[in-house]
Amino acid sequence: MKGIRQLAEHLDISIGTVSRALNGKPDVNEETRRRVLATAEQLGYVANQSGRSLRQGETKVIGLMIESGQETVENADNFFLGVTSGLQSVFARHKLDLLMLPCPGDEDPCEYLKRMVARRVVDAMIISNTLRIDRRVDLLSRAKIPFVAVGRSLSADNFPWIDLDFEGVAERAVERLVARGHRRIAITAPSSDVNLGYVFVESYRRTLERLGVPFDPLLVIRVKSSEQGGYQAAHELLQLEDRPTAVILIYELMAIGLYRRLMESGIRIGRDLAVIGFRDAPRARFLQPSLSCFRMSLYDLGIALGQILLANMPAHRASYPDGGRNIIWPLELVPGESDAFEIGAPA
Amino acid sequence: MKGIRQLAEHLDISIGTVSRALNGKPDVNEETRRRVLATAEQLGYVANQSGRSLRQGETKVIGLMIESGQETVENADNFFLGVTSGLQSVFARHKLDLLMLPCPGDEDPCEYLKRMVARRVVDAMIISNTLRIDRRVDLLSRAKIPFVAVGRSLSADNFPWIDLDFEGVAERAVERLVARGHRRIAITAPSSDVNLGYVFVESYRRTLERLGVPFDPLLVIRVKSSEQGGYQAAHELLQLEDRPTAVILIYELMAIGLYRRLMESGIRIGRDLAVIGFRDAPRARFLQPSLSCFRMSLYDLGIALGQILLANMPAHRASYPDGGRNIIWPLELVPGESDAFEIGAPA
Repeated sequence: MKGIRQLAEHLDISIGTVSRALNGKPDVNEETRRRVLATAEQLGYVANQSGRSLRQGETKVIGLMIESGQETVENADNFFLGVTSGLQSVFARHKLDLLMLPCPGDEDPCEYLKRMVARRVVDAMIISNTLRIDRRVDLLSRAKIPFVAVGRSLSADNFPWIDLDFEGVAERAVERLVARGHRRIAITAPSSDVNLGYVFVESYRRTLERLGVPFDPLLVIRVKSSEQGGYQAAHELLQLEDRPTAVILIYELMAIGLYRRLMESGIRIGRDLAVIGFRDAPRARFLQPSLSCFRMSLYDLGIALGQILLANMPAHRASYPDGGRNIIWPLELVPGESDAFEIGAPA
Repeated sequence: MKGIRQLAEHLDISIGTVSRALNGKPDVNEETRRRVLATAEQLGYVANQSGRSLRQGETKVIGLMIESGQETVENADNFFLGVTSGLQSVFARHKLDLLMLPCPGDEDPCEYLKRMVARRVVDAMIISNTLRIDRRVDLLSRAKIPFVAVGRSLSADNFPWIDLDFEGVAERAVERLVARGHRRIAITAPSSDVNLGYVFVESYRRTLERLGVPFDPLLVIRVKSSEQGGYQAAHELLQLEDRPTAVILIYELMAIGLYRRLMESGIRIGRDLAVIGFRDAPRARFLQPSLSCFRMSLYDLGIALGQILLANMPAHRASYPDGGRNIIWPLELVPGESDAFEIGAPA
């Protein structure tokens, strides 16, 4: 890669003039500027932004940490790629670029993040898959790196986050099923320590109690957040002595595995068993009968995340005076056929 | 973020001693080392790798450029997330990290890459969606940044790449269909200038001619590489006067839209029309009747890409003496029901 010195030597003009030409300063004649730019292009000259960043103390790059373990990827549904467009539309206004930091499946996310912070590649971070106790929140706070988390955590009282409305989803799903006569309602929960699992199950329990339906811990089925987890959940449902008449899923792709296992055993979804899925995912749109689930705009979520982050960055705070507040992100129910029956009604 | 100076002041020992303790040098007593490390952790000290990298001229980071336009994302099937794990397993051996560089849909990929190169975030690049004429190949060659491309290009005689075996896929699909009596075989091709489109259609044409079946340009249907494109392709097929009896798809998710349109018009897939899909994609696995298509391991592709790239990096070349060769990546046929009939045979 050619630097400015080689460029100046090649053109036989001073480094100062080359620099002024490259930086669009007015005191360079048009002919010289054109020569410099053409030669820079031809020789593959690239401005050393890294040196510039060191002096300015910033990289103009924002990092989005995602998980890239094989299991995660096979079961992921482009959630974060979907969020990316929205983030970039906000960052572009400030000439900031977004990089994705994929944490390998066999690496501790906090150690990974520590290494990334040490590389000084980014000015600010977006973290996801927030755990109930998440050391990354402390790490970033202590290192004074602005960040926003997708998901809450108990790790700090006050830090910027947006969380999907797991509480509202569980509440509405339970209300909907109880209104149709269901009393035995199962729910799936993640087998990991991810915070959303706690929020989801706790809201389910509270809503049941509010509606006078007893909470039965046997009906909380902990499985992996994957198609295979959905298959496993259906399998466990079928083993229960007093079989539930409805099930609420926490993760979008679980529906696919769950459908498969239920169909194998001759259970008619939407007739013998009501199913309510979580997020409306492209892969799950082809299920028959159609799945009742919840919808949200990933693009809009990306915009909101970007704005909260900028509101927490000293260089951009002034542009987002109201942007620093945490948000519970709403999801909208999309009724399908998978829960379209009432208990006790003639089939 | 605390630097080494603040750390030394806080501990009231010299910067030199703190530096030696942090870098594991032997001439620091164990008690001091423990104090330094504990305080560094407590104060959130982070080594300034960026300064280190400038001196060493390397960042230890590899970039993977992907497309993040909304349309791409909605139709993407985690192809590059799948490749990521394989790449990381190779890079981890050399303490290199992988970052994903998502190019926004409304930005010219070459301008985007130019900016990223200027940011000096990465030592080397993996580029994808290679165009027939791709200025990024020149840009990286001139800037002397090691790279590997997913996909060939006419832009340079000799650069490192791996390409899926589009040629072989088209050839085997045509052979399979001709062997079953098909003479009117349509093919879809991307509407963009992506190089794989040329390779695919050219191989289809050559194989038809070799087997004595006339090539009809009307049967090459150019549509977007998306579900919607598949729907559109089926629509155009149905308009053709002399309707084909088979169709070969170039992109995995096209099958979903194509199935939908064909079912709407009462065409029985695998009876009235034979369909051969491209890559075996998770979203397409639920199609009924099951789709004949081709399978490959994204993880293994990631390993191969990583090795070719390292073989082209001066610092790692020695570890990969045979690793620099370009590869046509094979795909294996997975027979399904979507083409399981012979022309002229009783249905």
